[in-house]
Amino acid sequence: MPVPAADAALAGGIEGPRALRPLLSTVLDALTTGAEDRAGPLPAGGPDAVARTVRATCAPLLPDDGDGAHAALATLVRTLAAGAADPADPHCAAHLHCPPLAVAAAADLAASALNPSMDSWDQAPAASALEALATRELAALVFPHAPRRARTPDDTYAPADGPDALLTTGGTESNQLAVLLAREAARTARHTTGERYAGGARPAAAARARAGRVAGGAGAAPVATLAPLIGAPRGPVDEPPPAPAPEAPALRIVCGANAHHSIHRAAWLLGLPAPVTVPTPGGVLDPAAVDAALTRLHGPVLLTATAGTTDSGALDPLPALADLAARHGARFHVDAAYGGALLFSDAHRALLAGLDRAHTVTLDLHKLGWQPVAAGLLAVPGTADLAPLDHRADYLNADDDTEAGLPDLLGRSLRTTRRPDILKAAVTLKALGRRGIGDLVDRTLAAAATLADLVEDHPHLELHSRPTLTTVLFRPTGVDDATVAAIRRTLLADGHAVLGRAATPTGLWLKATLLNPHADAGDLAHLLKLVEGHIP
Amino acid sequence: MPVPAADAALAGGIEGPRALRPLLSTVLDALTTGAEDRAGPLPAGGPDAVARTVRATCAPLLPDDGDGAHAALATLVRTLAAGAADPADPHCAAHLHCPPLAVAAAADLAASALNPSMDSWDQAPAASALEALATRELAALVFPHAPRRARTPDDTYAPADGPDALLTTGGTESNQLAVLLAREAARTARHTTGERYAGGARPAAAARARAGRVAGGAGAAPVATLAPLIGAPRGPVDEPPPAPAPEAPALRIVCGANAHHSIHRAAWLLGLPAPVTVPTPGGVLDPAAVDAALTRLHGPVLLTATAGTTDSGALDPLPALADLAARHGARFHVDAAYGGALLFSDAHRALLAGLDRAHTVTLDLHKLGWQPVAAGLLAVPGTADLAPLDHRADYLNADDDTEAGLPDLLGRSLRTTRRPDILKAAVTLKALGRRGIGDLVDRTLAAAATLADLVEDHPHLELHSRPTLTTVLFRPTGVDDATVAAIRRTLLADGHAVLGRAATPTGLWLKATLLNPHADAGDLAHLLKLVEGHIP
Repeated sequence: MPVPAADAALAGGIEGPRALRPLLSTVLDALTTGAEDRAGPLPAGGPDAVARTVRATCAPLLPDDGDGAHAALATLVRTLAAGAADPADPHCAAHLHCPPLAVAAAADLAASALNPSMDSWDQAPAASALEALATRELAALVFPHAPRRARTPDDTYAPADGPDALLTTGGTESNQLAVLLAREAARTARHTTGERYAGGARPAAAARARAGRVAGGAGAAPVATLAPLIGAPRGPVDEPPPAPAPEAPALRIVCGANAHHSIHRAAWLLGLPAPVTVPTPGGVLDPAAVDAALTRLHGPVLLTATAGTTDSGALDPLPALADLAARHGARFHVDAAYGGALLFSDAHRALLAGLDRAHTVTLDLHKLGWQPVAAGLLAVPGTADLAPLDHRADYLNADDDTEAGLPDLLGRSLRTTRRPDILKAAVTLKALGRRGIGDLVDRTLAAAATLADLVEDHPHLELHSRPTLTTVLFRPTGVDDATVAAIRRTLLADGHAVLGRAATPTGLWLKATLLNPHADAGDLAHLLKLVEGHIP
Repeated sequence: MPVPAADAALAGGIEGPRALRPLLSTVLDALTTGAEDRAGPLPAGGPDAVARTVRATCAPLLPDDGDGAHAALATLVRTLAAGAADPADPHCAAHLHCPPLAVAAAADLAASALNPSMDSWDQAPAASALEALATRELAALVFPHAPRRARTPDDTYAPADGPDALLTTGGTESNQLAVLLAREAARTARHTTGERYAGGARPAAAARARAGRVAGGAGAAPVATLAPLIGAPRGPVDEPPPAPAPEAPALRIVCGANAHHSIHRAAWLLGLPAPVTVPTPGGVLDPAAVDAALTRLHGPVLLTATAGTTDSGALDPLPALADLAARHGARFHVDAAYGGALLFSDAHRALLAGLDRAHTVTLDLHKLGWQPVAAGLLAVPGTADLAPLDHRADYLNADDDTEAGLPDLLGRSLRTTRRPDILKAAVTLKALGRRGIGDLVDRTLAAAATLADLVEDHPHLELHSRPTLTTVLFRPTGVDDATVAAIRRTLLADGHAVLGRAATPTGLWLKATLLNPHADAGDLAHLLKLVEGHIP
């Protein structure tokens, strides 16, 4: 059946915006109506009720004949909004799940409409230049002391070196890449020097020189033997390179019990032994315990620390851990998916001292950064550190094209086709400036302090500890874990509040992860009132 | 510096649409102006010129003080559009880089504004229900004969079984997941039965029973020992499970030289030996050569085939390969990222016979499917096949929450935070229907046939072969590889056309990958005229 022309209109070209305008109007109306239907942070009734509604309004999703563009948009977007847990509501505060800025969501539309793909220049000429500029400005915020080569226009896409960052789907992929880079650096070190590692955590001053050695800077050759598995410059691949030597000692990861689960999942994914997990009864890594763990291990080691834990927003002691990594010749990764945004704040940046001594740093602008998903980053002190990701596919980066000046972008991700997630982030940074983002960070930290004050002043609630970032753990005084868990589920089922949970050595706590910079004291007091209503 | 209220407005809630409307208007104006600036498929001047323009108009991207939302949107979106390789232009036809439908791009705005995250129900109540419905309808298209359990409302999020699919960032991640599932199935088979595999390629009829065995259906236990590495139901992780036994024979992948590079990259990523690559001088796998390769190998094997190769859009002989996999006890994966869309077409579906005998199938709706990136899928005949991805993190899927009825969604991806990429696809499917999408598929295949006719009729051009899907390989008669490559680069540098390249045993060819369903014979004739102008 021929599709009506209006329904088959494309989003790009000169005609695209004309086709988009009425459709976007339908989307905005449906978002408004859906939010009114919901009238709260999430729909009431729990999973079964939501599933029934979605099925009743939306199925079948693949009918033989379509409903038309406006009808489908109106139905599905309204259903989505009515059934959302909307982080723009101050009572939706369970997770590191941020309410996006309108400017970021609007910018993201341009990415959808033009659909650049970041795996080759001829699919994304300006988008790839924009990504290169923005990632290097962000990376310079993380590694302010790493030397930067003077830029010339022609090294925009493929810089010689200096702080750099890859776009990722989030903290999980960033952590996975950090572990992968450590795995490959360990292989390189063994292949070239037989050393455990060429260097430990990066001293702030001579950062680049050491990082260069660690990541295979001894020469291009060892990296080349590890990287692309289809090395033939053209045509069929008859001779796959040899498998990694199975007898080589595998990289061991040392992390805290407070580390994000993605560190463990990355080890599994990458075929590495499970991480050595150091207990963190106080919520953060204890340097003495880390020292003991590092002393027991032989062979290449990656020490990972967390700047902003998922459970409590705590910061591991980065300077002491960087010292230990250096002393033990371990590589050092910091997962700053949550806390990294303090870099934007003049008031709070000092909490991240030591971050710039890491080999790799996870950032995530879809947390404190107010971006729609996805907006993860992995920052490194130098572009050369990313060499293990080099990869070749004749149709995307043939040698003769690269020699003729077409940028080779395939090593900038493990994905091939890739959305320009940098656009929304770059527009936001340009719109608000570093100080503007810093202001939103400061406001959100202030809201968390206010919530902690309210809990401390409350006769029937107890506070776990003063918040470091924007996570506040609290619970009714004197209740057991099952009651805490039930209160959370009741608030969810009633559609009144979305709170998280955190298991600690002192039992289960309710978790408010504040990411809404506009939440005020009244909103927060009301949140506590909702909890209070369910104290048995 | 406090951010002006309008610049810090959120996209969600009841107020969000009001904040978005003027910003979207700025974006649409900038998209129009940028497209007019460009006046062609891509900007002229090549990489250096584009980089200079982007730097001049956009840097710095992280100023201390911001420019405001409208100014930043106007500047960056116009620059992006002016510097785009726009697949909505019929002369932008290098890659599997599709022009998105306006309805899909409009729907994607709702995902950006509400920002649901698919890793837990309390971040995405309706979005996760919608994903569950849509993925199962799509998977049923791939595996029409796999038994489906009657659905009740309460199994929406966590179905008992039946055809299922995971959303991915694209074909690359889908292929990676397919290899990962095969790796884990191989471990399970060894741990439980000592067999090479519990079964070969799935016979169409008794599909589920066998797939269940392969993926660990012998019981929950073997899967549990492989999966989640942080198994403690709560609190710190003191006892990581043992590392995978290094002495066990690793999974070997057998693929064609025509396979996508992501198969090779997945092997590297997952710590597996490099794939055994069977030459494909004819562009597709030869069953006799595959038989010989499978005969030589011992231990667990994954045979991968391609339905729609990147270089020429060719289809490997799926029925013969499925037979071989079954005979040799190998697992069978089909990368149908490109060709899978034939499932929508009544006219062309028969070309995919044998697809439903695979254990895993890669699909990708950001190719023939006209979605903005990302819209990848990995389809399996049964939900149980996905069990190796089960994963636990107390804050997202604690046991008591799952027992109380909160859906466990963490095993639906290797990502944690995850955008609801299903929304745009579901809206498109609902708007156009299966026959509507099929109509666009048919039109695009017809355009490729027309282009092939035009080449065949042209006195100075030669055709590589008649197209199977929408890829047409051609070149000026009698020129060498360097000339072919130079013609492509000249068209790029002039901003006149974006054509791809394909290296084959008969040398280098220009590649037109047609994905624009509105390209007409005049557009295609003009594309050839552009090439003709550069014949030396």
